Amino acid sequence: MTASAPRAVLTATATDFRVQSWEPIDFTLRYVDGVFAPENPQVADLYRDRGRCLAIVDETVHGLYGDRMRAYFDHHRIPVTIVALRIAETAKSLRTLERIVDEFAAFGLLRTEPVLVVGGGLTTDVTGFACASYKRGTPYVRIPTTLIGLIDASVAMKVAVNHGKHKNRLGAFHASREVLLDFGFLATLPQPQVRNGLAEMVKIATVANAELFGVLEKYGEELLTTGFGHRDGTPELRETAHHAGYEAIRTMLELEHANLHELDLDRVIAFGHTWSPTLELAPDTPMLHGHAISIDMAFSATLAQRRGHVSAGERDRIHRLFSGLGLAVDSPLLTAELLTRATDSIVQTRGGLLRAAVPDPIGACRFLNDVTTTELADTLAAHKDLVTDLPTAVEGVAMWSRPA
Amino acid sequence: MTASAPRAVLTATATDFRVQSWEPIDFTLRYVDGVFAPENPQVADLYRDRGRCLAIVDETVHGLYGDRMRAYFDHHRIPVTIVALRIAETAKSLRTLERIVDEFAAFGLLRTEPVLVVGGGLTTDVTGFACASYKRGTPYVRIPTTLIGLIDASVAMKVAVNHGKHKNRLGAFHASREVLLDFGFLATLPQPQVRNGLAEMVKIATVANAELFGVLEKYGEELLTTGFGHRDGTPELRETAHHAGYEAIRTMLELEHANLHELDLDRVIAFGHTWSPTLELAPDTPMLHGHAISIDMAFSATLAQRRGHVSAGERDRIHRLFSGLGLAVDSPLLTAELLTRATDSIVQTRGGLLRAAVPDPIGACRFLNDVTTTELADTLAAHKDLVTDLPTAVEGVAMWSRPA
Repeated sequence: MTASAPRAVLTATATDFRVQSWEPIDFTLRYVDGVFAPENPQVADLYRDRGRCLAIVDETVHGLYGDRMRAYFDHHRIPVTIVALRIAETAKSLRTLERIVDEFAAFGLLRTEPVLVVGGGLTTDVTGFACASYKRGTPYVRIPTTLIGLIDASVAMKVAVNHGKHKNRLGAFHASREVLLDFGFLATLPQPQVRNGLAEMVKIATVANAELFGVLEKYGEELLTTGFGHRDGTPELRETAHHAGYEAIRTMLELEHANLHELDLDRVIAFGHTWSPTLELAPDTPMLHGHAISIDMAFSATLAQRRGHVSAGERDRIHRLFSGLGLAVDSPLLTAELLTRATDSIVQTRGGLLRAAVPDPIGACRFLNDVTTTELADTLAAHKDLVTDLPTAVEGVAMWSRPA
Repeated sequence: MTASAPRAVLTATATDFRVQSWEPIDFTLRYVDGVFAPENPQVADLYRDRGRCLAIVDETVHGLYGDRMRAYFDHHRIPVTIVALRIAETAKSLRTLERIVDEFAAFGLLRTEPVLVVGGGLTTDVTGFACASYKRGTPYVRIPTTLIGLIDASVAMKVAVNHGKHKNRLGAFHASREVLLDFGFLATLPQPQVRNGLAEMVKIATVANAELFGVLEKYGEELLTTGFGHRDGTPELRETAHHAGYEAIRTMLELEHANLHELDLDRVIAFGHTWSPTLELAPDTPMLHGHAISIDMAFSATLAQRRGHVSAGERDRIHRLFSGLGLAVDSPLLTAELLTRATDSIVQTRGGLLRAAVPDPIGACRFLNDVTTTELADTLAAHKDLVTDLPTAVEGVAMWSRPA
C-alpha cells in the first residue's frame, strides 16, 4: 500500500480558493464460516465496546436465523435490537429508506455507531443508502445472505433506491466498513435466488475470467441445485463452490477497486447491464435481476458474434450456459422499441456514450459505442431465431420477483 | 500540493480482501464581479461545450435576475432551461428533492453534466443533495445569492434535507465543482437575510479570527444596512466588506479543508450549532438560522465566561455585537428542558460527546464535553439575567423564516 495518506491542500489567491483533498476509503471483506455460531467472535468484536447493536434484517432471513442471531448476541452479552424488514423490488424506495432512518432515530443511533445489515442485495442497498444519508454518513457492516449479495452487491460500495420506473436512480457510494462472507446462508436460499446470483457469476466469468467460465459450464447446474454445496454437496463440490465464489469476488475487486466511484464509465462489470435496467422494471411485476441481465448478456453475445468478437461456437456456449441454469435468454418484452428506449436511458447514465460491454473473446471485454437502432433491430431478430429452441427463450425458470 | 493522486490498493489473502483507496475531491471558489454580466465568460465557459444548461434557481432570485440570466445565455448562444423553485425551510425535504430529480429526468440530464444552482443555502442544500443522489453523483456548480450562501453554505461540501423535526438529518458530502462568488447579489438581498448571514460571520470571527471580530464590531451595522456596501456603500466600505467576506471564507476553509468529511468531530465552525438545531425547528414557524445560532452563541459566551475562558468584558462584547446587529441573544423558547433535549440530540450526532465549541478567548476555540444538566440550567438563568436589558433578548429583528 502507499506509505501514508495524502494531505489536503488549500490554495488561496486574491480571487480564487482551491481545495484538493482525498476521502479515505478502507473496507474489508472477510470469510467467516458460520457468522452467528457462538464460538465465532467477528460480529461480537465489532459491537462489544459499544455494548449494543442495531441490526436491520431481511424479514425472511429473520424468520430463518432470528433465533440464532439473538442467541449469538446473548452468548456474547451484547444487547441487540433487531428490526425485521420486508423489502420487495417495488419497495426499494425512498419511503422504505424513511422507515429505516426513523428506526435509527428511535434507537438513538450515534453517528459513529455501525448498523449491522443482514440480508440480500435489496436489503443492503436500501439500508446502505439510509446509512449513507443519515447524518451524511453512518457506518455499517454487511452480512449478505444471498448469492447475489455475497458475490456482487456487497462487493461494491454502491447503494441505492429506485425512483419511479428508474432502477437505482437515487443512491450513493458508501462502502460498508466490513463485509462478513458466510456462504453457509446458501443452505437455505431458495433455488431461484441462487440462480439469480449465478447470473452475476456467469457475467464476470464471460467478460473477465475464462477459467471461471469453464468451471461454471462444468459445475454450474450442480452448484445451483445444492446451494453451492451447502445443501447435500460433497466436500469436492464445496471446494469448487468456494473457488468459484472467491474468484468471482476477486475478479470484481481487481476490476473495480481503482474505480470505486465509477469515474471511468467503461466498466467491464456493466456487461449485461446496458439494456436490462429498462427491461427489468418494464413489467408490473419486475423481473428478477439475474434473468434481466441474462437476457441482456445473451443478446450481447449475439451482437458480439455478429461484430466478430466471439465465434459462433463461443456465442452458443454463452447462450447454453445461461439457459442450462434456467436463466432467460430472451423475452417477449425484449423488443426493438424497448432496446431503443433502454439505449437512450443508459446513454444518459454513461455520460453520452453507450459503452456496451461485450465478450472479446470469452474472458475478456470490449466496449461498443456505435450500435445503431437498425443494428439493434437486426441483431434482435437474429437473436430470437438463434435461441428459439433453447428452453428459456420465452421464460426463465422462476423469473419473477414475486410469484405471478 | 501533493505530487500525484494516491493509488488504490487491493490486498487478497485466502480469507480476506481489503481495499484501500481515496476519492479525489477538487473544487474551486472563484470571485466574479457580475456573474451574469454578458462580458463575463465564467458561466458560459462551463456550458459552452455541452451546448445547453439546466439551471435550478430560487424563485425569488428568478424574479429578480431571471431576465438577466436568460439574456446572458442568449448572448453566449447557449440554450438554458431554468426551473424556478420555491423552497422554504419547511420544504427542505425529500419531497422537494424528488421534484428536483424529476426535473433532471425530464431534461435528460447526463450523468457528467453539471447542474447550475442559483440561490441561497436552502436552494443549494436541497438541490445539492439531489445532485449527490441522482445516479449516485451528478456534478453541480453553485452561485450563492445570499450572504449565508456566499460565506458558509457554499464553502462547505455538505448538502442535506430536513427529516421530521430533524434539521439536515439526511444528506451527503458532495462538493460543487465550482462556486462562483458574486457579492453583488447582496444589493437586492433583504436586510433580514443579510443579518442571517452576518450571524455566521460573527461566529467564525468569535472562535477563529479576532481581527475579523474587530472589523464586525466597527462596521457590522453599516455592512448590514448597505448590503455589504453593494447598496449605497462608499468604495471604502465596499473594500471593508470584501475583506470581511474574504476572511470569513478563508478562515472557514483553513479550518475545514483537511476535515471535509467531518471525521474529526471537534469542529470550530460548529460554534453556535450545539443547541440551536433543536431550537431552530422547535416552533411551528422555524427561526431563521442566524437567530437560532446567535442565541446559542450568546448562551455559549455566558458559559465560556463562567468557565473562565473569556472575560466578562469579552462576553459582553460578544453579546453586544449580536444584539447590535438585531440578532437574538435569548428566547422564551430557550429553556432548561430544551437545552437538555438538544444536548441528547447533538451528542448522538457527535459520536457520544458534546463537543461544544466556545471562544477561548475571542479568536480562538476550545471544546467542552463535561457540561451537566445542572450547569446548563444555572448558566441559562445567569444568561437570561445578563442579557435582559439588551434589545434582542426576547426577540431578534425579523427572526422568523416567514413573516409571522
